[in-house]
Amino acid sequence: MSTQQLQILEHLAQIIESRKPANGGNPEQSYVARLFVKGDDAILKKIGEEATETVMAAKDARVSGNTEKVLYECADLWFHSLVMLAQYDLHPQQVLDELARREGISGLVEKASRQDN
Amino acid sequence: MSTQQLQILEHLAQIIESRKPANGGNPEQSYVARLFVKGDDAILKKIGEEATETVMAAKDARVSGNTEKVLYECADLWFHSLVMLAQYDLHPQQVLDELARREGISGLVEKASRQDN
Amino acid sequence: MSTQQLQILEHLAQIIESRKPANGGNPEQSYVARLFVKGDDAILKKIGEEATETVMAAKDARVSGNTEKVLYECADLWFHSLVMLAQYDLHPQQVLDELARREGISGLVEKASRQDN
Amino acid sequence: MSTQQLQILEHLAQIIESRKPANGGNPEQSYVARLFVKGDDAILKKIGEEATETVMAAKDARVSGNTEKVLYECADLWFHSLVMLAQYDLHPQQVLDELARREGISGLVEKASRQDN
Repeated sequence: MSTQQLQILEHLAQIIESRKPANGGNPEQSYVARLFVKGDDAILKKIGEEATETVMAAKDARVSGNTEKVLYECADLWFHSLVMLAQYDLHPQQVLDELARREGISGLVEKASRQDN
Repeated sequence: MSTQQLQILEHLAQIIESRKPANGGNPEQSYVARLFVKGDDAILKKIGEEATETVMAAKDARVSGNTEKVLYECADLWFHSLVMLAQYDLHPQQVLDELARREGISGLVEKASRQDN
Repeated sequence: MSTQQLQILEHLAQIIESRKPANGGNPEQSYVARLFVKGDDAILKKIGEEATETVMAAKDARVSGNTEKVLYECADLWFHSLVMLAQYDLHPQQVLDELARREGISGLVEKASRQDN
Repeated sequence: MSTQQLQILEHLAQIIESRKPANGGNPEQSYVARLFVKGDDAILKKIGEEATETVMAAKDARVSGNTEKVLYECADLWFHSLVMLAQYDLHPQQVLDELARREGISGLVEKASRQDN
C-alpha cells in the first residue's frame, strides 16, 4: 500500500475540516457542510444508515458475484466515520493509533481471548 | 500522518487474512478465525453492532466530554470492516482507492451536489 | 389494552397494503407507495435508519428526562416493520403469533436459557 | 386479528416488567433480567443488532423464497423493542396510541406529504 494511497484519509480529513461552517464551509454548496449544520444526530444517523447499506451490498454480492458495491458502501461508511470524527474534533490518525496499539500490545492475542459477542 | 501509522490498515489486513481457516487460522485461539468459521452473517452482524456502539459512544461523549470511547468504537467499526473486506477477498487499499477516486474527480463536488438523504 | 387500540396494527397493515402500486397506491401522493416503488433496499434501509434513530432518542431521554421521542421513534420503527412485512407478503399477525408461540411454549424459559449475545 | 393474538404485546410487556431485578427478576434464570442488569446500552445495542439481522433475513428471503426467518427476526426486533420500552418505563400501548394518532389525524396523509428520506 503506497503512502500516496494511504494519505487519502489524512487528505479527506483536511477537506472535511474545511467544510465546517466555522471554517468557511458553505451548506449550499457542500453536502458535508450541510451535515455539520444539521449536527450530531444527522451525522450519527448516517453511520447507522451506511452500515445497513454495507450489509445489504455484502448480501447482494453473494448472489451477483459483484463486490463493487461492497467497496462503494464501505467507502461511504468510512467517509461518514471521518465526518463524525471531525464533528467530535477527533482525527483518523487517532483511530489508526488505537488499532496499532491493540495490534502492538498483543498481535491480536487480545482479540483471540475476547469473549465472543 | 506518518507512513508507519498509516500502514496499520495494511498490516491488520495481512494479519486478518492469516486468520482464515484456509490459511491456518485457529478458531480456538483467534476471535477473527471464529468469525470466519461462522461466516458472512456473523461478520455482517458485527458491522451493524459496531455502528450502533459507535453511535451510542458519540451520544455519551456529548454528556461526559470524554471522546475516548468514540475512538475505541470507531476503531472496532473499522476493524470489523477489514474482516468483512477479507471475507469478500477485498482489500482496504481498494476502499482507499475508491475514496481517492471520488476526491480526485471532484474535490468532493460530487458530494456537494448529492441529494440530502 | 383495549381491542380498539390493539387493532391499529391490523388497520395500518390494511392501509399499507392499499398503498402498493398493484393495489392503486400512488407514489406521487403516498410516502408508503414511494417506498414500494423503490423496492426492497429502500424499505430495509429504513429499518436500519429507524433503529439508529430509536437508539439516539433513548440516549437523549436519559439526559432530557423526556421519553416522548423514544415513543415516536419506536412507532416509526414498528411502522416501517409493517411496510417491510407487506413487501414480503407477510402480516403483523404472523409476528404476534411467533411471539405468542415462544411465550406459550416456555414462559420465556427459552429466553432464559439463551446464550447471551 | 383476534383480541387474543393481539394481547400478546400486553402479555409480553407484563412478563418483561416482572423480569426487572426490582420486581424479582433473576439474572441467573432470565435472559431479560440479564439485559436489565446490564442496562441501557446492552438493551439499545440489541435494537441495532436485531435490525441488522432483520435486514439480512429479508435479503436472504429473496434468494431462498423462505420468509420464515424474516418473521423470526422481526419478532426478535419487536421483542427487544418491548424490553427497551420497559427500561424507559414506557408501554407498548403508548406506541400503538402514537401509531393510531398519526393514522387518525390524517389517514397517513401526513406520511404522504413527508419528505422522502
